[in-house]
Formats: sequence, C-alpha cells, structure tokens
Amino acid sequence: MPVTRVLTGITTTGTLHLGNYVGAVRPCIDASRRADVDSFFFMADYHALIKCDEPARIEASRLQIAATWIAAGLDTDRATFYRQSDIPEIPELTWLLTCVIGKGQMNRAHAYKAATDANAAAGEDADAGITMGLYCYPILMAADILMFNAHVVPVGKDQVQHIEMARDVAQRFNHLYGAAINREFFVLPEAQIDAEMELLPGLDGRKMSKSYDNVIPLFEGGEKALREAIARIVTDSRLPGEPKEPEGTALIQIFDAFATPEERAAFRAELRAGLAWGEAKQRLFEQINRQIAPMRARYDALMAEPEKIEAILQAGAAKARAIARPLLDELRHAVGLRRFQALAAPVDAGVKAKVQLPVFKQYREADNRFYFKLSAHDGRVLLQSQGFDGGRDAGAWVKRLKTEGAAALDGAPVALGDGVAAAEVAQALAALIAAEQ
Amino acid sequence: MPVTRVLTGITTTGTLHLGNYVGAVRPCIDASRRADVDSFFFMADYHALIKCDEPARIEASRLQIAATWIAAGLDTDRATFYRQSDIPEIPELTWLLTCVIGKGQMNRAHAYKAATDANAAAGEDADAGITMGLYCYPILMAADILMFNAHVVPVGKDQVQHIEMARDVAQRFNHLYGAAINREFFVLPEAQIDAEMELLPGLDGRKMSKSYDNVIPLFEGGEKALREAIARIVTDSRLPGEPKEPEGTALIQIFDAFATPEERAAFRAELRAGLAWGEAKQRLFEQINRQIAPMRARYDALMAEPEKIEAILQAGAAKARAIARPLLDELRHAVGLRRFQALAAPVDAGVKAKVQLPVFKQYREADNRFYFKLSAHDGRVLLQSQGFDGGRDAGAWVKRLKTEGAAALDGAPVALGDGVAAAEVAQALAALIAAEQ
Repeated sequence: MPVTRVLTGITTTGTLHLGNYVGAVRPCIDASRRADVDSFFFMADYHALIKCDEPARIEASRLQIAATWIAAGLDTDRATFYRQSDIPEIPELTWLLTCVIGKGQMNRAHAYKAATDANAAAGEDADAGITMGLYCYPILMAADILMFNAHVVPVGKDQVQHIEMARDVAQRFNHLYGAAINREFFVLPEAQIDAEMELLPGLDGRKMSKSYDNVIPLFEGGEKALREAIARIVTDSRLPGEPKEPEGTALIQIFDAFATPEERAAFRAELRAGLAWGEAKQRLFEQINRQIAPMRARYDALMAEPEKIEAILQAGAAKARAIARPLLDELRHAVGLRRFQALAAPVDAGVKAKVQLPVFKQYREADNRFYFKLSAHDGRVLLQSQGFDGGRDAGAWVKRLKTEGAAALDGAPVALGDGVAAAEVAQALAALIAAEQ
Repeated sequence: MPVTRVLTGITTTGTLHLGNYVGAVRPCIDASRRADVDSFFFMADYHALIKCDEPARIEASRLQIAATWIAAGLDTDRATFYRQSDIPEIPELTWLLTCVIGKGQMNRAHAYKAATDANAAAGEDADAGITMGLYCYPILMAADILMFNAHVVPVGKDQVQHIEMARDVAQRFNHLYGAAINREFFVLPEAQIDAEMELLPGLDGRKMSKSYDNVIPLFEGGEKALREAIARIVTDSRLPGEPKEPEGTALIQIFDAFATPEERAAFRAELRAGLAWGEAKQRLFEQINRQIAPMRARYDALMAEPEKIEAILQAGAAKARAIARPLLDELRHAVGLRRFQALAAPVDAGVKAKVQLPVFKQYREADNRFYFKLSAHDGRVLLQSQGFDGGRDAGAWVKRLKTEGAAALDGAPVALGDGVAAAEVAQALAALIAAEQ
C-alpha cells in the first residue's frame, strides 16, 4: 500500500484550548492512525521565536503543547514527533534554499504583505517593526517540509501560498542541482485544506480564539476551570420550562463536537422540551469531561515528569534525523560542499554535451498515480504526461517517445509545457534518438 | 597578555593569484603569528553558494584555497582553520539572529543596494534576479563573527557596514535576552581596515584582478605559468642599454612586494643604468620564484593528498565547535529552547529567587588543598575548582565569580559539572549577582 507522508507543524507560543483540540489536535491524531499515512508532527519552536521574545513563555508552551498532544492520544511510536529546534539539519537546509530563492517572490508572501499593508495604513515606513524572521519564515517553512519530503501538508487557507513557495523552491533546486545528474531531490508537497475542519464557537458565539477572550480551556485549570468556562457560555434568557431553539447556539455546537448523532438528537429534544440552560450546561460539562478527563489525568502526570516528555522528543528527533541527515548529506554534495578528494580532470566538451540533452523523468505524485515528463536541459518542462494507474503504462509511453520520436506524439496522453512549441519537442526527441545511436 | 581574537573569512569561488597572496594571504598569516593574537580563518563556503551554483567550481575552489593557505605557511595548530559549512552551529545562530534583526536595516545593506541600483539603471524591477542569499548574507556574516566572539574582523571598506550590522544585532540580542540575567552573550566586533594592505598591480598596471584578466597566477600552472605571465607585464619600449625610470611601473611595484629595501634599491639602480626589460623580467621571476617555489612544492604535495587537508580541516572544525557549541547552548537556553524540566511554579518572585539560588562552598580536601564548588539549588555541582595551596586563593576566585559573573569564567581554574552547560552556570552566577543587589 502506498504511504503518504503528512507533515504538521504546531506553533508553540501559548497553550491549547478546546477549539484547538476539536479543530486540530483530534482530527490530526485521527488521521495519523490511518495505515496509509506516515505522520510527522513537530513543535515549530524556531517559528515561535519570530513572534515571541519571552523565554519563559516559549519554554512553558513547548512543554505544555507536547504534553497535550501525547495526552490526547498521539501514538509517538508510530508518528514522528519532534521539536524543530532539535534538528540542526533544518537551519542548514534553510540556508541552501535561501541561496536559490528569489527576493521578488518573498515580497509577495501574505504574512509579510499584511504587515506592510498595516504599516501603510498607519502612515509608517513599509518595513517598520518588521523583523527578518517574519520576512524569511516561508523559507524556514519550506525547509521544514522539504527536509522530510512530505507529500501533504494540512494548512489553513492563508498558508496555501507558502506551500506553493515550497514547491517552487523545491523545483528550482531540483532543476539547478539535479538536472545534470538526473535526480529529483525533493518531492513537491501539496497543501491540504481541510474543508471539514471544525471551527468551534467560543463563549460568546464567535470563533473560539484567545484574541476574543472567549475560550474554554482544554486541560489548564482542571475540571474546575472547564466547568466555570462552560457556565459562562452566552444563552438567551428563556426560563426553565420554556422551549428553547438549540440550532445556531454556541452551546449546541460545542455539544455536537463531542457527541454521537443519537446524543445530539436527544439533547435537542430536551432543550425544545424546556430543559433549563443551567441544567443544559451541566449536561454539556459532563459530556465533554467524560472524554477529556482521562486525557487530563495523563496530561497532569506528564507535566509532573517532564523528563519523560523530553525522552519521547529525543527519540522523535533521532527518528527524524535518521531521515534528514542522509538527505542533507546528498544536498551538500550536490551543491559542492564535499569532503576533500582528488579533483576530477577537466572533462572534454563531448562529455559535457551529453549533459545538455533533454531528459525524461518518471515519478509518482501524492495522488499515488504515475507520471512522466520531458524536461529541456535548462529545466523547462517540454512535455507533461497525465496520471497513469501503473508505472508500466508510464514507462511504455516513455519508451515509445524515445524510439519513435515525434511520430508517437499523436494520441499520446501528454500536454506541451507552458509556452513550448511542438517543434521544440520534436527536436528534443530527435536529439535523444540521435544520442542513443 | 590580553589576546585579541581576529576572524578572517576566505571566499571560495576561484583560485588565488599573486595579488591575493601579497594583499591578503601573506599579511594575514604574518598577523596570525603574533603572540597576542588568536586567529580564526574560515573558508566561507556557505557564502560561496550565493555567487556560484557550479558544484565542481565550489569543490575545486575550497580545496585549492585551503591548500594555498596551508602551503603559504598558516600554522593550523595555532590558528583555528575551518570550513564554515562544517559548523552546523552557524546556520542555527543565523536563524536566532534573523529573528531579532529588522528588515529596514537589511534594505540599506551595500551589496543589496548596489544590486537594486543596477536593476533601476537597467529599467528592471528593483529585486529582479536578486536571491535571498544576496539579501540575507549580512546576517550569516554576523553569525560567522558572533559565533566565536571575535574582537576584530579585518575587512575591505565595502564590508565595514556589515560589521556595524553585526555589532547592532549583537547589541540587540544582548539586550533582549541578556539584560534580565545580566549577561552579555556577544562581544561587539570591530572592523579593521588595513590601510597598509598592498594592492598589487596586474600585468597592465591596473589593480590585479580576474575581472581585468591581468593576473599573475600564484601556484596554478607551476613555474612555467609564473614565468610566462611575468613576460607579459607591460613596459615601455626603451631598448637594452637605455636608462629606464622604474618608479610607477607595474614591474617595480611587483618586485617591491617580494624584496628587501636593499634589493629594491639595487634593482632600481640597475634599471636606471640600462638593464634590458627582458633581463629585468627574468630577475623579477627569480625574485618571486625563490619565495614561492617552496610553497608551490608544498601546495602540489597537498593537492595530491586531499585527505591530509581534509584531516586538518576536520581538526579545525572540532576546535571551532568546542567554542561554538557551548555558546549556542547558552543562547538556546536564553531564548527559551530548553530541555524539558519542571516549570517554575508561579510563586511570588522574591520567595522563588531565594529558594532557587545556587550556592558557593569552600572546603579542604584530604590532600590538604583548598577547593570551592558552585552547586545548584537542587544540589547538582555546576562548577568544581582545582585545588589551591591557600584558602585565600580559592576565596579570591569565588569573590570574582560572585561579582563579575560569567565574564570571570574565562581563564578561571574551574571545570563544569557533569552534563552541565555553560549557559546554566552563567545564569546561576547572574542570579547570585542579582540577589546581591
């Protein structure tokens, strides 16, 4: 069974609330249990430094968030769970990518543009108060993803552009350093925008968010804090006995996130039959607490023994570095950072000409289908195939094109690359045939 | 005697010519022999990637330039000689600095401004063709310097601004993360513009430079290439026997760079007495070759055994990392990237400080010598002194550490406790100082 590598970064500047649990932690952990998924979860603590210069807060958040994910059921034997800052290969890859990414592209990154727009609106200098961390973080993010050749990165809509930037720099690097040796170092990652991502309402009915001060805590403060927060959920003023319309209320939406269809229907019926709000909140508390309490106990136990979490993350880092190190070694070699050895004699022109030939590449995409493409010596895509169910089908077409040349193009399941003329493709195929003879 | 740490980066995108030798290699090696100087030389190969995407050229240049410096007499036992890319702490520090440097400052960096000006002149987009490598390299350069707390960085005038940027980011980091714990992590480096830096003329009398195609090779091509290049030095057309005015000619300036005052005077006298240009060039060749030939032999031997250079640079990297690692550990701790441990309870700050203070103990051992140690509040030994003949000596060191903090550690007769990071000791000492105040 083909396995998809899914990578999820977790920011580490605060603690998690119930909305984070329902919207991110629970679905991610569920997804990580699928047999066809190889999950990578990392604490994005280098990213946290961009937003937060309070060491104690960074320290506490890393620990609390790691404990939360483990307590919530992340299988750290199966998934690869690590702190970004435990992988020294990531900042090194960041530099290698920095050298091949264009500044013009960075200027168009959303997070940076939003900051300059805010400065413009305030009549400030465009770059006032903007750190290089904010400006450069899409490069670090690309390194996070490409370091492990993740196929899929679940993100919010605002991050889709950054995944595209990661694809772009991966393609550029593959071309610049891989074309001549016929090697694609990096998989091109795909953004996965989870349409079903649940957005839990907060106490006041707006999206649950620290910035609205309307959150229900997940573990912090224990059962007491959970009960007290739920008591503060805003309701209408209908009295006990009066029928209540549950749809659209914050209370019912929060209940739904923790209930089976049967429980949902039963709770609605009770509210319509006049259940008091106070009683309803008690039911909601019990419903949530039944599921959260065992996790909270694990959380408290973990927080009392941080060295256990440390050991889990050290093991995770070792697992992650076992993948990162060989790839980085290969990349270092590719760019010329090699162990000293006798230099190759300067090659003659004939040998060099071979390197300039167009080249066919076969590969598999995140959709698990097989593709091929024909690239010019300068990396431009001349031909791009459709997806095939089997690698053999793709291979058979490559073989036909390689032996029959342009004659095989008619009816072939391929499209010309952007701005590429059919004549150029015909010439490229002819050159390949000539080189074979 | 106070020792000045001098750090010199060597770009690795080409080979060195005679002008590089006279202007950079020879004076730097001379300076590194001074007893009051602790020299760091590094091959700036991460920087090379900004300018050069030809792996074979990067590979060849690193090897040739390392061989050149060793052959020219760099004492690699005394100086710390390493490849930048062998120090993973440098890209990590680069990221920490990236998070505290303002983007506005980067926009004003010379190298970047020169590139945008060129684009403007050509009617292009300001950032056309500019990579993030070019834009960000002053941050990498700051990391190169601050990683080793270099006091002095010899640079050309065009790099003075970048040293100022390194000072600035050092100051900002010291303030942001060090002020509360009374610790200055970074020395503020100073630029040293060598006014006496000799600029050797090339074959045509202009500054010797590859871009003018007027260079005399240093080692490449051997004696033959040296002789042939010297034969092409431009002279006037005065015939043998005619008096010749040596001052201002390229020939005499190149001769001067390799001659004693007596030799200079004698050569001038001969030219004025009518020495033929051909004969003068032969003299110049002999004068240079007498000094270069033994180095060239060493160079050729080294190039035939690259693994010897590799071993030298591996040893250099180990020496460099022995300095870089503890400092980076301290910096990581300072920003909040800490090993997981029980979080300090949010108790009243005054009580907490008292309870958690480390403690110095002085004592006498069975060997009748006097010792002291610094223990953490949980009893772990943070620092262990050597034995002293008198209790007064031990007491004097305790007093210095208690008043000067981590600054007094350098040269102190103490060892870190098992598994204790320098960062923790620095913090412990800072806490003691803070408690005294």
